Amino acid sequence: MESNPILVVGGGPAGLEAARGAGELGYPVLVVEKTPVLGGSPILAPYAALTPDMEDAETAMKRVIDAVEADPLVELRTGTTVTAAEGELPELSVTLAGPDGEEVVKVGAVILCTGFQHFDPGRETQMYGYYEYDDVITLVDIERMLKDERVVRPSTGEPPKRLCFVQCVGSRDRQIGNEWCSKVCCGIACKEAIEIKELLPSCQVFVFYIDMRMYGFWEDQIYWKAQEEHKVQFIRGIVTEITKRGDEVVIKGEDTTMGRPVEVAMDVVVLSVGMEPSDGSREMAEIFGLPLESHGFIETIDGPLNTVSTSKPGFYAAGAAVGPADLEDSISMAGAAVMKAAGFLRKQLVGA
Amino acid sequence: MESNPILVVGGGPAGLEAARGAGELGYPVLVVEKTPVLGGSPILAPYAALTPDMEDAETAMKRVIDAVEADPLVELRTGTTVTAAEGELPELSVTLAGPDGEEVVKVGAVILCTGFQHFDPGRETQMYGYYEYDDVITLVDIERMLKDERVVRPSTGEPPKRLCFVQCVGSRDRQIGNEWCSKVCCGIACKEAIEIKELLPSCQVFVFYIDMRMYGFWEDQIYWKAQEEHKVQFIRGIVTEITKRGDEVVIKGEDTTMGRPVEVAMDVVVLSVGMEPSDGSREMAEIFGLPLESHGFIETIDGPLNTVSTSKPGFYAAGAAVGPADLEDSISMAGAAVMKAAGFLRKQLVGA
Repeated sequence: MESNPILVVGGGPAGLEAARGAGELGYPVLVVEKTPVLGGSPILAPYAALTPDMEDAETAMKRVIDAVEADPLVELRTGTTVTAAEGELPELSVTLAGPDGEEVVKVGAVILCTGFQHFDPGRETQMYGYYEYDDVITLVDIERMLKDERVVRPSTGEPPKRLCFVQCVGSRDRQIGNEWCSKVCCGIACKEAIEIKELLPSCQVFVFYIDMRMYGFWEDQIYWKAQEEHKVQFIRGIVTEITKRGDEVVIKGEDTTMGRPVEVAMDVVVLSVGMEPSDGSREMAEIFGLPLESHGFIETIDGPLNTVSTSKPGFYAAGAAVGPADLEDSISMAGAAVMKAAGFLRKQLVGA
Repeated sequence: MESNPILVVGGGPAGLEAARGAGELGYPVLVVEKTPVLGGSPILAPYAALTPDMEDAETAMKRVIDAVEADPLVELRTGTTVTAAEGELPELSVTLAGPDGEEVVKVGAVILCTGFQHFDPGRETQMYGYYEYDDVITLVDIERMLKDERVVRPSTGEPPKRLCFVQCVGSRDRQIGNEWCSKVCCGIACKEAIEIKELLPSCQVFVFYIDMRMYGFWEDQIYWKAQEEHKVQFIRGIVTEITKRGDEVVIKGEDTTMGRPVEVAMDVVVLSVGMEPSDGSREMAEIFGLPLESHGFIETIDGPLNTVSTSKPGFYAAGAAVGPADLEDSISMAGAAVMKAAGFLRKQLVGA
């Protein structure tokens, strides 16, 4: 079809799936990714395994990357950012800044897959001790260790005997200004807890949580599995302070199920940091003139019966660019965005 | 494009969005809906308002139905079921049984949007008293009352003074055999609680829950709103028995936050019944030779990086046919399924 390419901003799971899908429908696609590599968070973090099926993240993402790289309709630009846009779809002029300098290209439709960024647990609050204590780490730090199949206390390099996850760090928190639930951290913590127990069966693993949001099949596939097969211990409680005593990290809080204060010493504390709107989303919203919704993610219109349309025709967004999203959400939304972008372009071409 | 139509089975949110999308891409679509009306659960239940944006369900669904009805590429068959299938895609012969008898049509691809059915709280267990007590009702029964803007105790016709929701009825329950979390009942109960308080400000409304699964923006948009603006009271507890005392229904259980037994009298008890695989999903899986996954929903392949592909090329499924799904999930998956079905048909036509 003779149209300008669909511009996909972001080369993570949503962006790659959008590129794959648009190619399958016969539309040319231009994928712009600001980092030097494709794959997004699963590759950049890097994740050890995907939630919930625990397939090796690199293997799974490679399938998608290979498919996209093999498609002659898909042009991939890594290390490249969108710096300006002028005119109107389907003849929008977009300026790209890449390794070989600047270039202006015409695009027919835009799909923003600019993802999320993790909450920085040292920002705005010292409560979590993230910057102070070596043995206080995040979900992402532990993924890296799991990827290397070597889970250790950072301060000693020895395997931990007691490790805990603290849920909702930077989520469901009015004081910090992040009022949303980040949706995936409960599932990811469960998955990581299982992986830790597989590597270190004698390590005691605890999860401090407010509500375990293990929706759908995550309930039995990973939550029950963590409890029953791997003896991960889930403690409903509010963590109010993380301090140091000798060489251990001490969690203070309230066990709300037992109704009593809790104070436990851990070798490693893993902060389950939530999702925040990415800088990339904000920048693209600015460049393309798209509003953000009240939490700072890219706004979609029409409520639950439309999940990927922004307020401007021809501009779509998918995945964590529009709010907390799991991998399935990102993949489904990417497909929906391609469907709508292709529909938009067809309307321009056939004048339907 | 000269292809056999895409067969969409089910005329609910996912099916209608799939039809709308396929039409937009220029593919002919045949929608088969077994009931006499389009709109699926939001219309059949009927729902009062959608979760989470609380738009009137009829108004919202009418937009989609109108769009589909106006599209000359979409053929709609209500009161019709698929009774047999023979041959191979994209020349699959499908037998339809409708009001005017049987007919065989050729289809190019298939999208199953056969939805879910609610757990029957009187089935297999008398614990909930659903068949025994008039004032024990379900999420669906209360939707009907909200739709009529008249919430009453069924036994007296008077407005209730105390009403409670009991979450996870038929979900997260190994004894019943439903091990999954139904994903949407927490959100729907919150939405209904708000609507009840709007109609009956002096009615005390309680929600008994295990974990409030208010993921993403549901957290502040409906959960905090229910607590802060509408004073809905959330009690973390396990309900072990529902009995009658005089003309009140008595909830017995354990308040797990306070760590003590709880026994409270209510005028109305609303059972938050979960999602189960629909008969329609099972029947279509049988007719088209598609496997079910371990919980009894239609199986999709490839883990989280593929959400709508079944094990047979050209056959896709979207929405609650493949597992517990909220409206956004259904709409996104419908778009993804259209993208894949159109890609499949294009591959047949251009031999790509």
